[in-house]
Amino acid sequence: MRMVDLIEKKRDGKELSKEEIDFIIKNYTNGDIPDYQMSAFAMAVFFQDMTTEERANFTMAMVESGDQIDLSAIEGIKVDKHSTGGVGDTTTLVLAPLVAALDVPVAKMSGRGLGHTGGTIDKLEAVEGFHVEITSEEFIDLVNKNKVAVIGQSGNLTPADKKLYGLRDVTATVNSIPLIASSIMSKKIAAGADAIVLDVKTGAGAFMKTTEEAEALAKAMVDIGNAVGRNTMAVISDMSQPLGFAIGNALEIKEAIDTLKGEGPKDLEELCYVLGSHMVYLAGKAETLEDARAKLQEVIKNGKALEVFKTFLSAQGGDGSVVDNPEKLPQAKYVSDIKAEKDGYVSEITANEIGTAAMLLGAGRATKESEIDLAVGLMLRKKVGEKVTAGEAIVTMYSNSENNEEVAKKVLEAYSISSDPVTAPPLVYKEIKK
Amino acid sequence: MRMVDLIEKKRDGKELSKEEIDFIIKNYTNGDIPDYQMSAFAMAVFFQDMTTEERANFTMAMVESGDQIDLSAIEGIKVDKHSTGGVGDTTTLVLAPLVAALDVPVAKMSGRGLGHTGGTIDKLEAVEGFHVEITSEEFIDLVNKNKVAVIGQSGNLTPADKKLYGLRDVTATVNSIPLIASSIMSKKIAAGADAIVLDVKTGAGAFMKTTEEAEALAKAMVDIGNAVGRNTMAVISDMSQPLGFAIGNALEIKEAIDTLKGEGPKDLEELCYVLGSHMVYLAGKAETLEDARAKLQEVIKNGKALEVFKTFLSAQGGDGSVVDNPEKLPQAKYVSDIKAEKDGYVSEITANEIGTAAMLLGAGRATKESEIDLAVGLMLRKKVGEKVTAGEAIVTMYSNSENNEEVAKKVLEAYSISSDPVTAPPLVYKEIKK
Repeated sequence: MRMVDLIEKKRDGKELSKEEIDFIIKNYTNGDIPDYQMSAFAMAVFFQDMTTEERANFTMAMVESGDQIDLSAIEGIKVDKHSTGGVGDTTTLVLAPLVAALDVPVAKMSGRGLGHTGGTIDKLEAVEGFHVEITSEEFIDLVNKNKVAVIGQSGNLTPADKKLYGLRDVTATVNSIPLIASSIMSKKIAAGADAIVLDVKTGAGAFMKTTEEAEALAKAMVDIGNAVGRNTMAVISDMSQPLGFAIGNALEIKEAIDTLKGEGPKDLEELCYVLGSHMVYLAGKAETLEDARAKLQEVIKNGKALEVFKTFLSAQGGDGSVVDNPEKLPQAKYVSDIKAEKDGYVSEITANEIGTAAMLLGAGRATKESEIDLAVGLMLRKKVGEKVTAGEAIVTMYSNSENNEEVAKKVLEAYSISSDPVTAPPLVYKEIKK
Repeated sequence: MRMVDLIEKKRDGKELSKEEIDFIIKNYTNGDIPDYQMSAFAMAVFFQDMTTEERANFTMAMVESGDQIDLSAIEGIKVDKHSTGGVGDTTTLVLAPLVAALDVPVAKMSGRGLGHTGGTIDKLEAVEGFHVEITSEEFIDLVNKNKVAVIGQSGNLTPADKKLYGLRDVTATVNSIPLIASSIMSKKIAAGADAIVLDVKTGAGAFMKTTEEAEALAKAMVDIGNAVGRNTMAVISDMSQPLGFAIGNALEIKEAIDTLKGEGPKDLEELCYVLGSHMVYLAGKAETLEDARAKLQEVIKNGKALEVFKTFLSAQGGDGSVVDNPEKLPQAKYVSDIKAEKDGYVSEITANEIGTAAMLLGAGRATKESEIDLAVGLMLRKKVGEKVTAGEAIVTMYSNSENNEEVAKKVLEAYSISSDPVTAPPLVYKEIKK
């Protein structure tokens, strides 16, 4: 078998066999296929796409290129949730304890990464003492005991995907549905999930700008997951504006606590119910989605979800009392309001600009070496559709430096104010099942 | 400017500016753009093509990536001829002295290369003493004096093309009209031609299998040439069977001599008149194509073309008397006939198999290190459309080894014999002008 022939085969729109795909991934991972052949292949895939079978085989070849996490020692169906990424997305922090409160095991492997705010681990480290440096045995014991634990990414997971992703990034081959879908799914599968709930974001602040694109990606991932024996479904949700109010690490922990108390932003709460219901249902802990939602509402109402969060934080060295005293979270020195410049209705909040503003404050990493300031961030006071008057606070800024003119400017640029009333966008567009 | 953005631009079907194309070629040549970006770019070009302006800019960027030959010291319009390659193509050997006899300056830079037979230089070296190790000054003096000279490829011509061609070969991006056209044209232009006559081969033995493909390539090259100020035209000619009778180095020299005497194979003679007429016309040595053809016929009839060939060979150290005594050319030890196995009409002679058979005899190089045997080769005795009877010679084999069963087998495989009469294919399909 020669790589040049396989590139040509894909270039000419023909379907590659499992053996051919295995050959490509195996030899690319070990360096026998050079980057210049792989990038030409990726560009051919961009134009010619892959069949459902090719996508599944490509995904599994990447899974098998490295270590696979064995979660079989954890009782129950392990349901993982994945979001394609947005701004101010606090769902993971809420959902982990929320579904764990219904005995759905949440064995979360998470990272730090670059972005507008830190990753899930960074956010959790806003709770004093919390750490993810635990052994695999401790991790599994904690999940069996408390139904939820978080561990840092370890091992050599999907090295083929890591290598290919780096290559796609510099060869204009990122934006390809089969390549995006197989990249995401390979990581989830290698991390040991039995079932997967996907939150595919759409809108100006998301990678998939239109619902059509989001739907194509969602369908691709659902098909891959089910083809390889993982019960998978997807929700297409709105990212035309940031989700919830908080963008920032400690601020999002506080928002998660509020939501677990039933006092969170309505959009965040609703999305958690939608995604959570599917997780509970796929884990076999409810007969119907309606049943699942009712149970989730119950554990919020009776305080059990909040209690699980507290236990989870304490079990990994964290100060669980922040749940009752959120003022124990890192506090910013300066709190100031950014005010509307005119009367009207919020017609748009470009999520990426809000995210960049938060990063300028220090909430996220621009490079791997950047230090995160856990205390800083932004709280949105007005969301799309709401009425504002000139001089009214639209955003509250939490900062540790005095001069934040650039941040305020970015925030004002992100907000569009219309003189005509505006209807808020829907939160959930569609659900994609096998 | 970032290469990844330019790949994306081409991927999305947008036109690249001259500055962007210059950036790509300049930085690819000097190594700042890595192969893995260039191969993704080439694949994007495969799918999205290039506009006429992009093709011209791409060609000139490759021309400017290295040395350019300055032929301005040679009087007259320098017309170069290029063939896209076939089997038994003796046209260059005939055309060089033929048009030179009409004062068209032929300053030929040539190579050795791999293939079924040697390159033009290898063939000429079948004439004892002939050599191309002359200085640029001698080369120019010889062309001014005799109107024809041949020099070996020297200098650093189109390094971008060399590098890109090697990459395309292993990334399934060879078969792209804009990339093939710019590759060929950049070499011709860097070699200093004022005007270019292209012989684009079509049929089973050519790179372009159909006349439609050949026409697309011809049009692409004619457009590039004229866009950059080189008067360029193309002839689309048949390569569904080998051209002429001879395949082999000394055999082709002998065939060229025969043709210059007016005693060559009819198809080779006719193609030389067609291509030669255009060369003479573009060089301004005739008012019309008809006029040019009449003049060419005249110099063959009156022996001037043959005389020019003799002078040319002698001027570069060769034994010019081979023109009168072709038996002085290297002779093979064994001459034997390969005979038809049944009665019928020759319906096909697959040029590539005949070429491979000649290479097996030693007429060509399989690798750069191979030694060529100048004496060996094949002479076709029957061509498509001709009647044969079982036991009649269809090919004469010239060999220096006794055992040639494999060669004979290949030759018989190359010949198809039909019981129904067959019409010979046309020789020239079309002429493409600006």
